[in-house]
Amino acid sequence: MEISARNVLEGTVENVDVGAVMANVKIKISSTNIITAVITKESVDKMGIKKGDKVSAIIKSTEVMVAKD
Amino acid sequence: MEISARNVLEGTVENVDVGAVMANVKIKISSTNIITAVITKESVDKMGIKKGDKVSAIIKSTEVMVAKD
Amino acid sequence: MEISARNVLEGTVENVDVGAVMANVKIKISSTNIITAVITKESVDKMGIKKGDKVSAIIKSTEVMVAKD
Amino acid sequence: MEISARNVLEGTVENVDVGAVMANVKIKISSTNIITAVITKESVDKMGIKKGDKVSAIIKSTEVMVAKD
Amino acid sequence: MEISARNVLEGTVENVDVGAVMANVKIKISSTNIITAVITKESVDKMGIKKGDKVSAIIKSTEVMVAKD
Amino acid sequence: MEISARNVLEGTVENVDVGAVMANVKIKISSTNIITAVITKESVDKMGIKKGDKVSAIIKSTEVMVAKD
Repeated sequence: MEISARNVLEGTVENVDVGAVMANVKIKISSTNIITAVITKESVDKMGIKKGDKVSAIIKSTEVMVAKD
Repeated sequence: MEISARNVLEGTVENVDVGAVMANVKIKISSTNIITAVITKESVDKMGIKKGDKVSAIIKSTEVMVAKD
Repeated sequence: MEISARNVLEGTVENVDVGAVMANVKIKISSTNIITAVITKESVDKMGIKKGDKVSAIIKSTEVMVAKD
Repeated sequence: MEISARNVLEGTVENVDVGAVMANVKIKISSTNIITAVITKESVDKMGIKKGDKVSAIIKSTEVMVAKD
Repeated sequence: MEISARNVLEGTVENVDVGAVMANVKIKISSTNIITAVITKESVDKMGIKKGDKVSAIIKSTEVMVAKD
Repeated sequence: MEISARNVLEGTVENVDVGAVMANVKIKISSTNIITAVITKESVDKMGIKKGDKVSAIIKSTEVMVAKD
């Protein structure tokens, strides 16, 4: 399956913090960058996402902003 | 200024492709990862975004999905 | 590959309208519902999306609103 | 009132799961498709959203991705 | 019709800039604040959005970030 | 630092409601408009966001819809 989202960043789950409805997932994509993904608790449960998993962070291009000093 | 968006990825603009309303900006954040940001032409013009600029890609955590094989 | 996005709606591409940077893709998911997806022209080109293709519309749950009369 | 969001899917609320800040709402839009919407608990309370309600799931076109096998 | 999106800002259309697929709409909501909305050209055409129209800018709460000095 | 997001609305924090993962922040931007931002609890903690703070609500233009009667 190929997806139109242009940003697919491979990494490893560093931490999963689960609430009643949402979960905060930390994904290490390089020695300097950790991505934070907020997804449903339901997805964490169904996909069995846990520390150490090899995953990808996926981001639609229209969701990315640019900042410049 | 600090922003609540948890994902700030530093990189260099590799390419800017401008349409009538939107623009597609490629930002190299590492040797293996290039981020695609779709922002307004208006922002590209006002910020003077061009190839070679040092910029950051900024992404709100609620916009990040997780994929697993 | 499994993705955390909870909404995966299978359908058939009815139309693709391409601009300089973005594209408007119409996906028929039932006899009464057509989904509009706005994605990059780049994705349309790389994935070869065209009328008649069997595709899925994918939507992160945090992007869905609810309206009630 | 007409809204610019192109995707308005009529359905029936199947389940509401409420947390401290967010809520997960399941909306059945056809015999085969259930939409998950994550909205604020505040909206669920103010609109009185509950199982059995006739509602619409509303999605901005720029939030829809396309996947193809 | 009531919508779950918490942010409904009333204003007047100041300008509409239309491209092949997308459109940039400027909405004046107060003497100091102008909102930029990027929506489909299709919505602008179907709703007949033009300068001087009384409209509302609608924003889902999960799309709002907070910045602090 | 300049950001591509076109909508920066200055205001004062009126209330912060914190859950396990997410937080609901109310920002008064004028006598008639209060913005609701849903951000991570992590951001509220790291930025020390509290009632009375002078902040800005930041919204990417692609996230703004338009409604018309």
